Amino acid sequence: MNALMTFHLALILDLIGVFFFAVSGSLLAARRGFDLVGSLLLGSMVGLGGGVARDIILNTGPPSAFTNPIYLAPPLLAAVLVYFIPGNIERSARLLLTFDAGGLALFCITGTLKALEAGMNPVAALLLGVTTAVGGGILRDVTANEVPRVFDPKDLYAIPAFVGAGLAAALWHLGWLNLLTGTLAAVVVFGLRMLSLRFGWHAPLAARSWARPRFRRR
Amino acid sequence: MNALMTFHLALILDLIGVFFFAVSGSLLAARRGFDLVGSLLLGSMVGLGGGVARDIILNTGPPSAFTNPIYLAPPLLAAVLVYFIPGNIERSARLLLTFDAGGLALFCITGTLKALEAGMNPVAALLLGVTTAVGGGILRDVTANEVPRVFDPKDLYAIPAFVGAGLAAALWHLGWLNLLTGTLAAVVVFGLRMLSLRFGWHAPLAARSWARPRFRRR
Amino acid sequence: MNALMTFHLALILDLIGVFFFAVSGSLLAARRGFDLVGSLLLGSMVGLGGGVARDIILNTGPPSAFTNPIYLAPPLLAAVLVYFIPGNIERSARLLLTFDAGGLALFCITGTLKALEAGMNPVAALLLGVTTAVGGGILRDVTANEVPRVFDPKDLYAIPAFVGAGLAAALWHLGWLNLLTGTLAAVVVFGLRMLSLRFGWHAPLAARSWARPRFRRR
Repeated sequence: MNALMTFHLALILDLIGVFFFAVSGSLLAARRGFDLVGSLLLGSMVGLGGGVARDIILNTGPPSAFTNPIYLAPPLLAAVLVYFIPGNIERSARLLLTFDAGGLALFCITGTLKALEAGMNPVAALLLGVTTAVGGGILRDVTANEVPRVFDPKDLYAIPAFVGAGLAAALWHLGWLNLLTGTLAAVVVFGLRMLSLRFGWHAPLAARSWARPRFRRR
Repeated sequence: MNALMTFHLALILDLIGVFFFAVSGSLLAARRGFDLVGSLLLGSMVGLGGGVARDIILNTGPPSAFTNPIYLAPPLLAAVLVYFIPGNIERSARLLLTFDAGGLALFCITGTLKALEAGMNPVAALLLGVTTAVGGGILRDVTANEVPRVFDPKDLYAIPAFVGAGLAAALWHLGWLNLLTGTLAAVVVFGLRMLSLRFGWHAPLAARSWARPRFRRR
Repeated sequence: MNALMTFHLALILDLIGVFFFAVSGSLLAARRGFDLVGSLLLGSMVGLGGGVARDIILNTGPPSAFTNPIYLAPPLLAAVLVYFIPGNIERSARLLLTFDAGGLALFCITGTLKALEAGMNPVAALLLGVTTAVGGGILRDVTANEVPRVFDPKDLYAIPAFVGAGLAAALWHLGWLNLLTGTLAAVVVFGLRMLSLRFGWHAPLAARSWARPRFRRR
């Protein structure tokens, strides 16, 4: 695949990922009683935070979120949508998880892709993809004074991101990465995450022999 | 305005902004029962954190807070002042809000200015100015395990910063930016923020139709 | 000391420091009921976070934690060890403090050394050493929704790190820094920290005249 196509692929998937994560941030802002400006700010932090961290770590100049104004459109759209959304707080919990899963699915692909484009080795690219994917959500939850969702032991969160980053790195090296295969990889990640929520798939606890401590989000 | 004058303008306003934010950090440290070293650390994180983030995003070499030792003076002074301050915890809440407003007012001006100096486009410069201004306070409140003040829906916080960053960008493009107009713009931001606290000016909530959730800082 | 030896010295002490901090992160993950993947993530954040921040501030290219895969070994080892560790939650509190002290002791030395290597002035190098040393622990505690241990007024945390960074800068300027003296400096820091825990050494509170507020970690 040539560099221009890769660039467009990464940009399109990246913008959709920013939108999904921004909706999750604006929904959390609404649930916690923040105002419209706080909704825009938290949505921007979640949507753009992971990518800004990625670009700072890649060290290839100022992060795209600051130099390319198109990145502001998804958080603005997300804050407006959440403002007008009919519904209630209970329904928003499921919506938040769904949009968060969408952001996770796209960012593990685009993060890995951007790192490979910048000349990183495959292991580093995979790690940076996962960092991009889980970073925004950690920022969202820590800012709203909650334990990040990625640490909730009742379902899988980081493992789907690792799978997606691995798929992206493999497709890239085989030269098979395009909008279709990239989207398919994202669908796999999204499916894994949603199925783990539905069926309670989970990983073993951090310490085998201890009495199970109770996990609390706040 | 020539580059040297801009440099001095930014440095002076920046140092005063660092001092204001550092006082707010040291006051929070005192309220939460931290020790003198914790007061110096939290003051430094609030005073210097926003600027370090700004310099890292601009990607123009190591942040000034680390390369120019003069930046250490304001947090040191703030920790010493708060140590000897007579008074009590109740009075400190109002003092904290006032110094925080001072830091907010100066950082949205200097952050925008530094970004324009570094060659960023006006939209990016405005965003980076707001990021610099609200970043230090978010860092302070998250570190002390509170929901950041910027998300409190009972008054205006980010909107005054947007106004200040917009004023700074406009003055810069008109060639009217100097110590006097820069200070005036900061006074406008400070006034907006304090008036919103006094009269309870606030923005609409993040979701129009939902039952209002109770906002809790901790 | 020649540059190659300094490089090896910094790498060895750095990797041991990453391991110590990673164990503290994985232990906290276990105490809070996170799963094995959360244990690996939190361990990586604590072990690698301070160094990534340091490398980003030094602005000398992508952080070593991402470009050199050897940095992944200590967090992996730590998560596996904590998974198989026999014992219970009560015992883990003391273990966590001990491993945290080990990471603190090594990172204030290696952080200062890396900054001096990168050509920073001694004051900036000392500050960056302390930032590297306390940064990982702040990240760990904030992510797990606790007030960072560095702010606990009942013992000394940042002061030993300042002592260690000062020793490292002095040894460097005298040309006496090697694996032996570097390790000795780290032992001094570790000893100071553990003695302050044992005997309750502490600094004065942040405000002299106020009624003492109660410090709470959560």
